[in-house]
Amino acid sequence: MVTGAQACAPAPGSAVSAPGSAAGVEPRVAPIPERDSDEGMWTVDNFPTARVQAKHGFGPTQAWLDHVRLASVRLANGCSGSFVSPRGLVMTNHHCAHRCIQQLSTAKRDYVKSGFQAAKVSDELVCPALEVDQLVEIRDVTFRVMGAAGKLAEAQANEARKGEMSKIEKECATDDNTRCDVVTLYRGGRYHRYKYRRFQDVRLAFAPELAIAFFGGDPDNFNFPRYGLDLTFLRVYENGQPAKTEHYFRWSGGGVKAGDLAFVAGHPGSTSRQLTVAQLEYTRDYALPARLLRMAERRGMLSLFQTRGAEQARIARATLFGVENALKALRGRHDTLLDPRVFEAKRAKEQALRAKVADDPALRKAVGGAWDAIAAAQRKKKQQRIAHSMLERGDGFWSTYFEHARALVRAAEELPKPNEKRLREFADSKLPAVRQQLLSAAPIYDELEIAKLTQSLMQLREALGPDHPVVRLVLSAKSPQQVAQQVVQGTGLDDVRERERLLAGGIAAIGASKDPAIQLAKLVDPAARQTRQLFEDQVEAVEQRAAEQIAQARFELFGRSEYPDATTTLRISYGRVKGWEENGTQIEPVTTFGGAFERHTGVDPFALPQSWLGAKPKLDLSTPFNFCSTNDIIGGNSGSPVIDKDALVVGLIFDGNIHSLGGDYWFDDAVNRAVAVHSEGILVALEKIYGETRVRNELLEARAK
Amino acid sequence: MVTGAQACAPAPGSAVSAPGSAAGVEPRVAPIPERDSDEGMWTVDNFPTARVQAKHGFGPTQAWLDHVRLASVRLANGCSGSFVSPRGLVMTNHHCAHRCIQQLSTAKRDYVKSGFQAAKVSDELVCPALEVDQLVEIRDVTFRVMGAAGKLAEAQANEARKGEMSKIEKECATDDNTRCDVVTLYRGGRYHRYKYRRFQDVRLAFAPELAIAFFGGDPDNFNFPRYGLDLTFLRVYENGQPAKTEHYFRWSGGGVKAGDLAFVAGHPGSTSRQLTVAQLEYTRDYALPARLLRMAERRGMLSLFQTRGAEQARIARATLFGVENALKALRGRHDTLLDPRVFEAKRAKEQALRAKVADDPALRKAVGGAWDAIAAAQRKKKQQRIAHSMLERGDGFWSTYFEHARALVRAAEELPKPNEKRLREFADSKLPAVRQQLLSAAPIYDELEIAKLTQSLMQLREALGPDHPVVRLVLSAKSPQQVAQQVVQGTGLDDVRERERLLAGGIAAIGASKDPAIQLAKLVDPAARQTRQLFEDQVEAVEQRAAEQIAQARFELFGRSEYPDATTTLRISYGRVKGWEENGTQIEPVTTFGGAFERHTGVDPFALPQSWLGAKPKLDLSTPFNFCSTNDIIGGNSGSPVIDKDALVVGLIFDGNIHSLGGDYWFDDAVNRAVAVHSEGILVALEKIYGETRVRNELLEARAK
Repeated sequence: MVTGAQACAPAPGSAVSAPGSAAGVEPRVAPIPERDSDEGMWTVDNFPTARVQAKHGFGPTQAWLDHVRLASVRLANGCSGSFVSPRGLVMTNHHCAHRCIQQLSTAKRDYVKSGFQAAKVSDELVCPALEVDQLVEIRDVTFRVMGAAGKLAEAQANEARKGEMSKIEKECATDDNTRCDVVTLYRGGRYHRYKYRRFQDVRLAFAPELAIAFFGGDPDNFNFPRYGLDLTFLRVYENGQPAKTEHYFRWSGGGVKAGDLAFVAGHPGSTSRQLTVAQLEYTRDYALPARLLRMAERRGMLSLFQTRGAEQARIARATLFGVENALKALRGRHDTLLDPRVFEAKRAKEQALRAKVADDPALRKAVGGAWDAIAAAQRKKKQQRIAHSMLERGDGFWSTYFEHARALVRAAEELPKPNEKRLREFADSKLPAVRQQLLSAAPIYDELEIAKLTQSLMQLREALGPDHPVVRLVLSAKSPQQVAQQVVQGTGLDDVRERERLLAGGIAAIGASKDPAIQLAKLVDPAARQTRQLFEDQVEAVEQRAAEQIAQARFELFGRSEYPDATTTLRISYGRVKGWEENGTQIEPVTTFGGAFERHTGVDPFALPQSWLGAKPKLDLSTPFNFCSTNDIIGGNSGSPVIDKDALVVGLIFDGNIHSLGGDYWFDDAVNRAVAVHSEGILVALEKIYGETRVRNELLEARAK
Repeated sequence: MVTGAQACAPAPGSAVSAPGSAAGVEPRVAPIPERDSDEGMWTVDNFPTARVQAKHGFGPTQAWLDHVRLASVRLANGCSGSFVSPRGLVMTNHHCAHRCIQQLSTAKRDYVKSGFQAAKVSDELVCPALEVDQLVEIRDVTFRVMGAAGKLAEAQANEARKGEMSKIEKECATDDNTRCDVVTLYRGGRYHRYKYRRFQDVRLAFAPELAIAFFGGDPDNFNFPRYGLDLTFLRVYENGQPAKTEHYFRWSGGGVKAGDLAFVAGHPGSTSRQLTVAQLEYTRDYALPARLLRMAERRGMLSLFQTRGAEQARIARATLFGVENALKALRGRHDTLLDPRVFEAKRAKEQALRAKVADDPALRKAVGGAWDAIAAAQRKKKQQRIAHSMLERGDGFWSTYFEHARALVRAAEELPKPNEKRLREFADSKLPAVRQQLLSAAPIYDELEIAKLTQSLMQLREALGPDHPVVRLVLSAKSPQQVAQQVVQGTGLDDVRERERLLAGGIAAIGASKDPAIQLAKLVDPAARQTRQLFEDQVEAVEQRAAEQIAQARFELFGRSEYPDATTTLRISYGRVKGWEENGTQIEPVTTFGGAFERHTGVDPFALPQSWLGAKPKLDLSTPFNFCSTNDIIGGNSGSPVIDKDALVVGLIFDGNIHSLGGDYWFDDAVNRAVAVHSEGILVALEKIYGETRVRNELLEARAK
């Protein structure tokens, strides 16, 4: 599943000046390079229309791009989606809404298992913590952000930059229905303000059974051929009514077939294609292995937890899916970085760029030291990484209660400060998101929380050692399990009203609170903030300034011919429906309903739901079900619409193949493939399997308009 | 804990010709190199007496070495030990006997928790599957083994070598009380026949409570300062009577203090110091990460399994300890290989050797291609590694039942073949070990077996993919959990008599068996054997020949001045009781009883047992408890005696510090330390805490003789 890992970064408006021409740097050479592959996650303000026209015989117009931008949406949980009717109907993946569906379920009424259909609009159920954002404007604010940093020393420049970003966002976000994010593009080469229409009332309209949404489960995840209906329809509301969404995608007549041109409009979360060799080495040797080990241990625990009983299986499911997905994705990325060809290519490219910089006296002076500065920052990162991960990133406290408690403790401390001086996630522009997470009605399951917190406290003790001051503070004379039980069983944070009270009560309420989760968060916070400050000053600030310098050199040398690394902002990629060759075998790009029935064994994760088995006689088994294409996507693109040149929906991205995992670092045209549900498969399933559902009629009506 | 990971390799006799002078290669330069550090795991037939004399003022005589050899023992489970009385009393670590102690326990009578003391000899309990071996003779058989391989192509040479080794062993092991192993030393430079007196009747005499044996638990494992009584006394029997053991170590009067010279005689399991750079890269990038991930997932499962209840905590304990120990050890090794200094040093050393070889026309012709051949074998290994690990090494079938079933299925197929043609582990000389494992009375716990097998079947499906023929065969239309339940609940292999019947019944009994564990093993075996054959022919055979060539070059160039990589054979290391500097702080080398009481929190793993708390008033808190020294040891040395120049027991190795983990690849004199229980701490504990135990009196009597 190509879901963004952490998500919740920036948000987008109207096209602006192109990167190469802004901020006073004129491109010296700006030819469109020869490019055979369909690589590229292009921002909507710098789409390579001429190149696509030349290669594929169709070049999107500005009107086309504007329409696509306004019909596409971002899910603030790290996914993508699209409007598919004028009444706020949003198409996305089941796995993007999985947590919401689980949160709306109970032991007796398990919509994850049974699927969900709202018979009428008033039956649609409010998702406790989903947000949908529509990009209405983009504005270049590079001059302001860079100006604020000016010639300050690195750490101060970093602070100043963040302060200015918070200030710009606050000026822009004039009400809670407007979200503004200042986005760092080209790793600091450009800062753009993305302005969104924000929907926080998001409701569940339709979801199929998990068994078909995630048919093949973890074993088939990131594989192809594939047979999944990874689909959910949500609806955004305003003032208690379905929102009016003028721009939406209409459904295609018959969808795509092999060889057809296709576009994907979505929000890839993050890529690392422009990292330096030193950063990639750090990623390969330290960052990825540490996360892999943590995820493997989590999977071991959760898999056994699920065997405790049906209810435990249910409550742990979404968490386990996230862990398994991360595990597989991280492993694919690690494998890519272990491939010597990748580093050879990266090294050669970096050396070529450094040689060009060295050849130009002005560039050499301004930029020449950037790579070494980044390499030095990696050494700092190695020293700081364990404490930073455990204490500040919270890997030592894997618990929803702890997350809530920390948010409350920090909100109390941060909110009294001026907007520009706060930790970035507490800037005024971020508060609607903070409130939504903190006051979500999503249930929290104590049994699972105890298991999660116990495991992570053991990891904390292991990572920092039993004699580390924080470990001694947290565990004192107790075992990790005892502490976890005490926190989880003693906390009142399961009650939304208590969280609301503490949020409203600020520093006085937090100071007076004897809640064990709050106390735990307070205990850890000084050390956590200290590791954060150290990391920001000695690593982030150095990387940021150096990356900015390298980006400027690239603009000067290559102009606007490159796309920025993914940053959870709207990107359009282009490609064709196409298979690939695997160990001498040609993988065909389109699968059918018939294939799903062939793969059915009757046992999870290869068990089709009853609705499918019952409908089989009515189905044309040659109906296209899933397909793959050369579009350049990555985690965060889950739920992206696949559209044709007429901007009609031909598919719904939900995955990439195994080779796409290396897409974090490079795009290998020969084998990297996006995986989508076919538009025709969706329509036929809605009609024949789910009984002429209301959403299907809405799609057809919308198409007819 | 420095236990050998898998163990059960070779066993040792009388000194033979030195490496440099055997097999026709005369050393060209044989100076004793300047060596400041105490590095080296020396075989008893090539101990650097002159060097130790020069550095430490004492050089062991041949009589000293012979005595030490005969008083030291190997535990076939991957540990070391020593005779400490003339009546077969063996001193080793608690963690080396942990599994036996657990196997002798029940839910109601948990000796792991309570400790164990046999009041009289007849109360000593038979360990179900322990073997103790005493090295009585070493003989050089290089000429025969190399002669058998001759000029055959690699794969055939590999087969011929193994056949000859089985033949030599069979000729030597004339009865079940004699064990003979042909040991590959210097990675193929030498083949020695190690002849052992074998004891398979091993009984438990004394064990303290786990709480003090493993005080500090996983958090303190591989750390120092340390406070553990990781001690167990076993006794070997012959014909139902305590064996007579003429050679044994006497107890020291007061043990060692900082600065004292100390020797360790034990059986380090394996080191990788002489691997080529290509092999080390493979280890760093593939072998270690894969094992780490598997262990992390196992730990996640087992930790939660333990929370099911007291009995589940008990039955999973030894397994979890093994997993945690491996996890920590592997992580330390991985960290070492990620240190760029290590590869720089390895690369420089390899290049220097290759340059010397290239400079010599004869060597260049004979050896010049070895490094590239090994590098090519690593590429094969990468392709084969997943199937080999899952199918042949059994990582996809983590289950005691599966191990038994595979042993039975293979025994039925192998035993009818001529000795030299069998898989090596079924050669005649290995059969006593096979029988002991297979017919062990150790209990098997179905609940744990189901959890283990379920997890590993999921890993199998993940690693090979759901469409791999073996995965389809094994799972057919079932889930991993269903298959695991069916195998575990349906098998009759929990009954030793049934295993005995199938072993005796051979191919006919196996063919007729409907036992689901046997059927699973039969199902997997063709593919497993195929991956093994491929691996042996394309990887092992190539590495073996090339390593042999490199070893010959080293002998020719450096003579007998080097020690071979560890191979679970008897080695002696020398060093001094010495601390080290950690982040600017000097770590003192000797801890005391008082330190243990200071570290006591009352909660596992920092809870001293009642026996200690009760005895506190009687104890001199300055009694030395643990110490560290510069001796070069590694996993497998657990249970090794530490002796002084008079061959008196001054300690009992049970661990290394965190820096010792890198000892697999290099010995860093500045920080690598062995960790031992102090002889005085042992004696005082036996007297004051455990009540003048019988074993203590036996030690004192033995000393007086």
